[in-house]
Amino acid sequence: MTLEAVIQAQARISPHIHRTPVLTSRRLNDEAQASLFFKAENLQKVGAFKARGALNAVLSLDSDTLARGVATHSSGNHGAALAYAASIVGVTAHVVMPEDSLPNKIAAVRGYGGKLTVCKPTLAAREAACETIVRETGATEIHPYDDDRIITGQGTAALELLSQTEKLDLIITPVGGGGLLAGTAVVAKDARVSVIAAEPAEADDAYMSWLAGKRILPESTYTIADGLRTGLGERNFAIIQSHIDDVLLVTEEAIIHATHHLMHTLKTVVEPSAAVPMAAILQNPDTFAGKRVGVILSGGNLNLNAPPWLPSLGAE
Amino acid sequence: MTLEAVIQAQARISPHIHRTPVLTSRRLNDEAQASLFFKAENLQKVGAFKARGALNAVLSLDSDTLARGVATHSSGNHGAALAYAASIVGVTAHVVMPEDSLPNKIAAVRGYGGKLTVCKPTLAAREAACETIVRETGATEIHPYDDDRIITGQGTAALELLSQTEKLDLIITPVGGGGLLAGTAVVAKDARVSVIAAEPAEADDAYMSWLAGKRILPESTYTIADGLRTGLGERNFAIIQSHIDDVLLVTEEAIIHATHHLMHTLKTVVEPSAAVPMAAILQNPDTFAGKRVGVILSGGNLNLNAPPWLPSLGAE
Repeated sequence: MTLEAVIQAQARISPHIHRTPVLTSRRLNDEAQASLFFKAENLQKVGAFKARGALNAVLSLDSDTLARGVATHSSGNHGAALAYAASIVGVTAHVVMPEDSLPNKIAAVRGYGGKLTVCKPTLAAREAACETIVRETGATEIHPYDDDRIITGQGTAALELLSQTEKLDLIITPVGGGGLLAGTAVVAKDARVSVIAAEPAEADDAYMSWLAGKRILPESTYTIADGLRTGLGERNFAIIQSHIDDVLLVTEEAIIHATHHLMHTLKTVVEPSAAVPMAAILQNPDTFAGKRVGVILSGGNLNLNAPPWLPSLGAE
Repeated sequence: MTLEAVIQAQARISPHIHRTPVLTSRRLNDEAQASLFFKAENLQKVGAFKARGALNAVLSLDSDTLARGVATHSSGNHGAALAYAASIVGVTAHVVMPEDSLPNKIAAVRGYGGKLTVCKPTLAAREAACETIVRETGATEIHPYDDDRIITGQGTAALELLSQTEKLDLIITPVGGGGLLAGTAVVAKDARVSVIAAEPAEADDAYMSWLAGKRILPESTYTIADGLRTGLGERNFAIIQSHIDDVLLVTEEAIIHATHHLMHTLKTVVEPSAAVPMAAILQNPDTFAGKRVGVILSGGNLNLNAPPWLPSLGAE
């Protein structure tokens, strides 16, 4: 896993992704007493950085393999990203989604032409449904994060960010399965930029694993940051363990506040997972004060019909 | 009122405003069967194009006049814009706001250091309060739209848009008092680009005036597009009458849908007034099909605690 692989991924996917802008806000800088550079992956194709990894994985397959299609299980953005990537090359993407997935994320998979299978909301049910599809169709399973091509693909966001900003002191990303974090770490280590992970305290397996020096899988996790409920992947853990500087935990309340605050101040739509780094910055001012900080806004697929800062209205 | 005056305004204000990006969306283009170029003035200083006109007006005053401060009455973005402009040159902005102004708009005026006076929600009360302030302080009143410096300032958004896009066929803007529309018309006429205004049917005085060939002041107007409730200004009407091609009316339902749709698709935060042109495009497909259309997203100061597509929760 090298910078070279990320550069190759960038060349492979760049015709099909946006070079997303870097947003800044004087007000947020004042609040953090830092210089914050927000890499707006919420404006990426499919509304999330996941388009990068999925495209890199799909475009790495040979044409015979590709012709049999691709498959994955995902509660969210990776499913839409794989459907988008498959549509670019004209093959089928089979996407298994748990029945409790957000309606807007299910609609996105359908919108990009993905072939949807709904299953019970357990990891076992997801894996079983995906295995069946792979056996029956010959499709190649593309794991959402525990995959070298996914990791290098996600790393292209940080690669771009470094080319769009003067020397950063550190980059902060959210961590769920660890694809974005590991990809960012590969790039940042080479550039001698520190990397900090931000994770919901309600899904703190990356923090626990990092502390223990071994991968600890999460027990049942519930966080409003629906993109970060999954456990750290094996490959991801190995990279993270040796490359990153800290894991910061944030409360659910802080995530909800940061989601609202980013939308209010930057006027850009972010999903809760994307606001986890901002929550960590606001909760840990001493860590960031005076620094030039890259912040990856991982996605913008917020369910506008149920913003997390408003009381639930029941049916969506 | 010439293109030259708009170019001078641009030179005057450019150190203090953002050159806002132009956003595009394949999905929205597909829906409209047109090429839409969204000028993101929701990302402008103070979250609205109003920063342009207010800065141009303030920076046009001589230093003795400036020292006595500036004053205005406004239910929204112009108040915040004048407070921002005054803060740039270090003078006081007196802002009279009706008591039914949105809480986030009141907070914005305060946030930029404006001196706030709250009054009854009638034009007479607003004017009386503003006159008192002017008499007592010697401040210069800066009208939100019926003012040459405001009109040329607002025209700089269209000037920038034309420099950021290949030849457009037309530009569509919302119309309230007519500052943005008149400024856009001045620029577009010179560039031989058509101009269409979009107006809430519930506040249709620009449409009625344009049809009648004389300015017809609005009766009581209520529209969710709070920036567009005011009547057309005199100077504004004169320019609009001779420069624009059409006024399209849209329903409240269409405005609410377009607000949600822009936020969902472009991942950018818009206030209802800013979505009125998109509503007009969706309601009048034949007018726009096959054209290259500039759309001015006038502002992003949405009250996130009461998005218009959700049922009201009572207190905000």
